[in-house]
Amino acid sequence: MNAAERISRLRTLMAAKGIDAYVVPTADFHQSEYVGEHFKARKFISGFSGSYGTVVITRDDGGLWTDGRYFFQAENELKDSGIRLMKMFVKDTPSIPEFLSDCVPRGGTVAFDGRVLSMGEGKEYEAVLSPKQIRIHYLADLIGEIWEDRPALSDKPAFFLEEKYTGESTASKLVRVRKVMEEHGADSHIIASLDDVCWLLNIRGDDIDFFPLVLSYAIVKMDSVELYVDASKLDGRIQAELAGNQVTIHPYNAIYEDVKAMNASETVLIDPMKINYALYKNIPCKIVEAANPTILMKAMKNETELENIRKAHIKDGAAVTKFMHWIKTRYDKEPITELSAAAKITELRAAQEGYIRDSFEPLCAFADHAAMMHYSPSEETDAALTSGAFFLNDTGGGYYEGSTDITRTFVLGSVDDQMKRYFTAVVRAMMRLSRARFLHGCYGYNLDVLARGPIWDLDLDYQCGTGHGVGYLANVHEPPAGFRWYVAPDKNEHHQLEEGMVITDEPGIYEDGKFGIRIENEFVVRKGVQNKYGQFMYFETITFAPIDLDGIDPEEMSRDEREWLNHYHEQVYEKIGPHLTEDERKWLKEYTRPV
Amino acid sequence: MNAAERISRLRTLMAAKGIDAYVVPTADFHQSEYVGEHFKARKFISGFSGSYGTVVITRDDGGLWTDGRYFFQAENELKDSGIRLMKMFVKDTPSIPEFLSDCVPRGGTVAFDGRVLSMGEGKEYEAVLSPKQIRIHYLADLIGEIWEDRPALSDKPAFFLEEKYTGESTASKLVRVRKVMEEHGADSHIIASLDDVCWLLNIRGDDIDFFPLVLSYAIVKMDSVELYVDASKLDGRIQAELAGNQVTIHPYNAIYEDVKAMNASETVLIDPMKINYALYKNIPCKIVEAANPTILMKAMKNETELENIRKAHIKDGAAVTKFMHWIKTRYDKEPITELSAAAKITELRAAQEGYIRDSFEPLCAFADHAAMMHYSPSEETDAALTSGAFFLNDTGGGYYEGSTDITRTFVLGSVDDQMKRYFTAVVRAMMRLSRARFLHGCYGYNLDVLARGPIWDLDLDYQCGTGHGVGYLANVHEPPAGFRWYVAPDKNEHHQLEEGMVITDEPGIYEDGKFGIRIENEFVVRKGVQNKYGQFMYFETITFAPIDLDGIDPEEMSRDEREWLNHYHEQVYEKIGPHLTEDERKWLKEYTRPV
Repeated sequence: MNAAERISRLRTLMAAKGIDAYVVPTADFHQSEYVGEHFKARKFISGFSGSYGTVVITRDDGGLWTDGRYFFQAENELKDSGIRLMKMFVKDTPSIPEFLSDCVPRGGTVAFDGRVLSMGEGKEYEAVLSPKQIRIHYLADLIGEIWEDRPALSDKPAFFLEEKYTGESTASKLVRVRKVMEEHGADSHIIASLDDVCWLLNIRGDDIDFFPLVLSYAIVKMDSVELYVDASKLDGRIQAELAGNQVTIHPYNAIYEDVKAMNASETVLIDPMKINYALYKNIPCKIVEAANPTILMKAMKNETELENIRKAHIKDGAAVTKFMHWIKTRYDKEPITELSAAAKITELRAAQEGYIRDSFEPLCAFADHAAMMHYSPSEETDAALTSGAFFLNDTGGGYYEGSTDITRTFVLGSVDDQMKRYFTAVVRAMMRLSRARFLHGCYGYNLDVLARGPIWDLDLDYQCGTGHGVGYLANVHEPPAGFRWYVAPDKNEHHQLEEGMVITDEPGIYEDGKFGIRIENEFVVRKGVQNKYGQFMYFETITFAPIDLDGIDPEEMSRDEREWLNHYHEQVYEKIGPHLTEDERKWLKEYTRPV
Repeated sequence: MNAAERISRLRTLMAAKGIDAYVVPTADFHQSEYVGEHFKARKFISGFSGSYGTVVITRDDGGLWTDGRYFFQAENELKDSGIRLMKMFVKDTPSIPEFLSDCVPRGGTVAFDGRVLSMGEGKEYEAVLSPKQIRIHYLADLIGEIWEDRPALSDKPAFFLEEKYTGESTASKLVRVRKVMEEHGADSHIIASLDDVCWLLNIRGDDIDFFPLVLSYAIVKMDSVELYVDASKLDGRIQAELAGNQVTIHPYNAIYEDVKAMNASETVLIDPMKINYALYKNIPCKIVEAANPTILMKAMKNETELENIRKAHIKDGAAVTKFMHWIKTRYDKEPITELSAAAKITELRAAQEGYIRDSFEPLCAFADHAAMMHYSPSEETDAALTSGAFFLNDTGGGYYEGSTDITRTFVLGSVDDQMKRYFTAVVRAMMRLSRARFLHGCYGYNLDVLARGPIWDLDLDYQCGTGHGVGYLANVHEPPAGFRWYVAPDKNEHHQLEEGMVITDEPGIYEDGKFGIRIENEFVVRKGVQNKYGQFMYFETITFAPIDLDGIDPEEMSRDEREWLNHYHEQVYEKIGPHLTEDERKWLKEYTRPV
């Protein structure tokens, strides 16, 4: 059955149930970025496989909303579906509720599975649709009805993350969370986001793609925690830890009924962006809306976590440097493709002690494929690496010592002057942000121009943020830290830069049909001097792998910039060199030479 | 009578009227930045003469809220008043309503003259004070009762600004304003800000300090305009122009009663930040709140205005260059003080054709005085210029062709290495912002770091914005354009950067008790390339006067930066040279040499 046939079956169901438009987001019940196979409803219905996007099917139209990373890929994958690409964050593209309000008749019905839309989204739909008396039917899992061989929910085991990795016990985290609940006057706090539950309880698992998380919900009360999870995943060690923290275990799906039974006189704290619409609709008591307290706590890594993360980056840098050596010295001697390269970097990471899994889907993109920004290879698209082009790889590892996210663009053979100029601009962009010193109180939008400036100077832009927070064995895109120049409507996605936040810095240049260049380091937000002007902050770079000097024109860089690059490469050689073979080390010496 | 005695008389009155706290802002009835003598109530009561600040007097305490520009000056001037300095925008400083809520007893009374507080401020007071049942008495002009020799309102004549200067007729402006009113569903629009009224009616006057504006209010209706102004100020030409645009003239103060008589079924558009609280309280009909439509229109200068402004800047640059030559070649040969220097620059500007008046109070600050950021000399503080120090001058002219605002810091004799390093950093900061290229949609807070970065790199900061919009023979600080890194609570003070906005770029370094350095150019926001990424924008620098090379260490600058500076100085020589004497030109050649 192809996408067009599946959509046709969905329309038949919609007609039978009097539904004018059906919304299928990319989500599980927890607003996860990557989801388990069971939840890939949007891919099932549309064929679009990117990590971000929402499909809307009406009686005679269909749209996919996704962002600049995926415009190219989506256009390819939607080709025969009849679904139109709706470019998010591009002028004149309506929001989904606006689109629905335009095309659904007055008094009509919009439906979706309320468990896979966030509360915030659901309420926005209500606000935009109610003036036209359009009803919202949120208990409709129509995809479930037409998806015959839908995969079951994951039943993989969870594991306990020791304090030598987390740096803080659940008991201590609970004290901090309850303090914030108290400040909000809340008696209980529903946590529905997987990374928040896992961070709080120091557990990890294997229930969704890439991020090692456990399908679960938690309700934190002042003297207990109710945890909703498939208990068969929890070993004795975890059960004992949970019991020691007054955590009671309930079946995964029991939360919907339990919430309905909450005491009407209670006050519950929920995060409108982190709880699904159906769960929210079940709450019978007073609600205080605020970001999950765990979001900021989790984002500000503690000293133990930071020490671990630095170690993880050395291992990871060794894997990436070996990979770079392998690609650059072998691509013209043996057949290497995007897929075999992706397998190789995973293999090199897997050989590192403490490796658990890749921290996200490896993006290995040769030549024009890299213009798609977040292209990942498949059997159908796999391309062989050849000379005279760039090879972009955006990959990462998950280790007990934390997760990494690194992008390098390798020069294969020689490239023309324009490609070198662009490559150099991207390197300068990445460096300019990583060298920033700033006052505490700055947001990402204050500093984004440091990276974007050298790209804007060329009348070019990369149509995405410059960087994102990185979770510790959790979401690789972890709010609220990040860099973008526009202020997103969702305030949860913005927070001033705080000590201990780990953030990526990944500007790029993407030329449709030609090439893509991205260079990505991670850094930690650190405190600098405190004086009468306030608390100064700076970034400590923690990613160490060569930036391909074959792409750099030193003439395009200022003396300062050359000094920074040379100093960086000196550190790469010092830190990574000891973990390489003699051959690799000799090669690294050359690729970390001063320019 | 000194400040302490005046405050004591105020407290006696407060006690008699049952008032617990009395608020005295720096304002006329129009939220003007500079005010006429009649309105200098805050200076009268406190002795603080800065352009920005609000005094609160309670039964036993007193505070002055002002910003970083004035911390030093305020501490000096408040010394014997018993009033404490409350540093705005500094951590832990309460807002005025918060302060009032803390110190006024439950059920107490806060009073002020409702005509000199904005509607927005008044409503914020209501919101913060009502939970404590604190009453607001807003018809209390207590300062009027104790100020025996209070100056009368200005009765200076107004003048008409020809279309060759304004580039747009009142008729055309009214069409645009009425279109926005229509979009808001408004039948009428009250304009209470002087620069908005004067811009709309193409008139100027002489009623407040420095800004050539006319005390007036306007109510724009769909087919007429009601203008509230002292009619004796309007000559026949103006009266004819007004009549041609269906403008009816009413006595200045009649608006308060006329507004009460508005039809309850009408909808009126008002700008909460641009209308006073008393006037707002008189409105009996439906209110739509939005920024005055004239604010954005006025900020985006048209081509005629821009051509004029460029001409004004050449005249002004010639005056400043002559001034610089005079100071730098004469200060060690004849006695020059801050006051005589201020008189000299005014004299040099006045000699330019089309000069009307200075565009703001000339700030001439020698050595440590300049650390006060916005110090202006008085008989008591006047200092003689001597060698081994900086002399900061922040001045501007108002010409028929527009207003200017320029700061230069001159090196007198030689200065030490640290002073040179700081001077060079300030020049680099100014240049970095002026060279920015960016996408349309950017706000000032996206770009501020370009200027602030080189200062932050030294663990220093200037505690104010980097720049502000500049009016055309109107407010020299003209919203909504500007550069600062924090997002101000008042959204009217933020607007994305639009074509035709004229903005200053004036970073600085201020060392208490030592020196102050500020370099200020103005530029125009211009459209660059438009492509698939959007509309690129850039800044066209329009200020031309030498940046003192005696303060610059070229070794601290990148090649790019030196090239920019050399190119700038080349233009200064080309544009300003022809307007100088032979001697001055020879000197200018040396002071615009490449580095």
